[in-house]
Amino acid sequence: MKDAMYIPTYEDMLAAHERIQPYIRRTPVRVSDYLDDLTGARLFFKCENFQEPGAFKVRGAANAVFGLDDAQAAKGVATHSSGNHASCLSYAAMRRGIPCNVVMPRTAPQAKKDTVRRYGGVITECEPSTTSREAAFAEVQARTGGDFVHPYNDPRVIAGQGTCAREFMEQTDGLDMMVAPIGGGGMISGTCLTLATLAPETRVIAAEPEQADDAYRSFKAGHIIADDAPKTIADGLLVPLKELTWHFVSNHVSEIYTASDAEIVEAMKLIWKHLRVVMEPSSAVPLAAILKNRDAFAGKRVGIIITGGNVDLDKLPWLQGRDS
Amino acid sequence: MKDAMYIPTYEDMLAAHERIQPYIRRTPVRVSDYLDDLTGARLFFKCENFQEPGAFKVRGAANAVFGLDDAQAAKGVATHSSGNHASCLSYAAMRRGIPCNVVMPRTAPQAKKDTVRRYGGVITECEPSTTSREAAFAEVQARTGGDFVHPYNDPRVIAGQGTCAREFMEQTDGLDMMVAPIGGGGMISGTCLTLATLAPETRVIAAEPEQADDAYRSFKAGHIIADDAPKTIADGLLVPLKELTWHFVSNHVSEIYTASDAEIVEAMKLIWKHLRVVMEPSSAVPLAAILKNRDAFAGKRVGIIITGGNVDLDKLPWLQGRDS
Repeated sequence: MKDAMYIPTYEDMLAAHERIQPYIRRTPVRVSDYLDDLTGARLFFKCENFQEPGAFKVRGAANAVFGLDDAQAAKGVATHSSGNHASCLSYAAMRRGIPCNVVMPRTAPQAKKDTVRRYGGVITECEPSTTSREAAFAEVQARTGGDFVHPYNDPRVIAGQGTCAREFMEQTDGLDMMVAPIGGGGMISGTCLTLATLAPETRVIAAEPEQADDAYRSFKAGHIIADDAPKTIADGLLVPLKELTWHFVSNHVSEIYTASDAEIVEAMKLIWKHLRVVMEPSSAVPLAAILKNRDAFAGKRVGIIITGGNVDLDKLPWLQGRDS
Repeated sequence: MKDAMYIPTYEDMLAAHERIQPYIRRTPVRVSDYLDDLTGARLFFKCENFQEPGAFKVRGAANAVFGLDDAQAAKGVATHSSGNHASCLSYAAMRRGIPCNVVMPRTAPQAKKDTVRRYGGVITECEPSTTSREAAFAEVQARTGGDFVHPYNDPRVIAGQGTCAREFMEQTDGLDMMVAPIGGGGMISGTCLTLATLAPETRVIAAEPEQADDAYRSFKAGHIIADDAPKTIADGLLVPLKELTWHFVSNHVSEIYTASDAEIVEAMKLIWKHLRVVMEPSSAVPLAAILKNRDAFAGKRVGIIITGGNVDLDKLPWLQGRDS
């Protein structure tokens, strides 16, 4: 199961769903007549921001954590992440009562560090560079023996993320398309995994920030292209595709659309105002892409995964820069 | 049914629920381990902010609008309100395809006027005084013959609001208490109406801003006391009790707790952060009251009605006054 070349299956997703059931929420699906009128589509939003730690990533993290045998579990888990994966893995480890070690850049926002610590995660700080992170992580893993749970390039994680699409299909009467943001590609890969068997007629669409469009360029080129230090307000989508997620993206994704940061912020505010849910910029990329490519979605039943809701309420993007 | 002394019954509520079903959402119930830990209670939040027009008031408004006979319906409905009732009545009238006339003070926020107009409501502006409002409303009603749907002192409205508590009980395995904010008392009255029959052991608690505590003072005095120009951030709760709502408050409410504006803003931010829903200051008063009176709620199963989600995203209360 942990061989890097192992491609998770539909059965892995079903097993994951049973395993993680007690630790996740079957999040509700929201609709808005206003946003339907605006886009000309029939939109369904699955609120993964309503998971207790605030993001879909609790699905994959819980699948990894609760799939460990007792001997490995005693040594805990380890990862490197400055975002939702760190919080969600800490949360899942806390629920099982095992250690979780996280390597985070010392420059990560204090709020993110606080959340990891609230769930009992132990943080080792590194410098904000790949070299420093890899050295720090190697030391932590050697010292603790913690099982490495990669944020997305891990079959257990992808199988876990795929449980979201399964619920989403059960909660709606069929969808023409399902749209999710793409960063490393964990959620999109899980969605492809599930829909390829459950609803092969439902197209999987990825939405990506223009300013971190490595998946878009990889998709067009036919091989993985990594960005050099991308910078976008959608801070959950900075990481590149890896072998496993590239497998799903290259084989199952129908299209990748991009949107600018300004379009992302506008879509984010629309969702806050009309769906009345608190979600992060990354989760607004699908609506931004739909508004920008109206003809591709008009008249269709479109499922959108609201991936996360961890945002700094003191620094809302549409209120920034007003004093300058 | 429209006699001012008619007290709506449990059967009226059941009939209302059947009547309004196609026009309302069965809103989801959210929970948060974090807020449970913070309060020591088991909290359930019913998200009436997720109704299409953003507030529970669509229940009472739809019950009034869809209960009209065709002759009256042709003349439409009329009301005076500067808040959610105006939007919700316009929305219900639009769904039935009948006219809705609303008298609003010319000083009402532009966003509220825009929402009423988006739903086809016709606004007549008045000066921000009782005299001017009453004169303007009398003229509008005489001219249009629209049926007056009072924001809360109307048995059809109270029966409609009571449908929320019915859903809430179905969605939870019993509650020790149900808490809602109190302004004019429409939601609290509907809650009393429903629970008195459906779950008489569930206590009904009202939560009120300290700076508009007329219901609290009325409750303690045993008769209606109206505030003189109250001012609070919870702008949905400025209006006084009337005969019908006083009937329910005086007979069925177990307790009224108050909270300061600072406590309300703190509770609001906690809900945005941990429940990840966008709601207005008025809807945060129950959590503020629970945090302030921990011993009364600790260990209990407590249902909280999040009454509305219409808030100006450009003017969040915890970000105000920073420049001054």
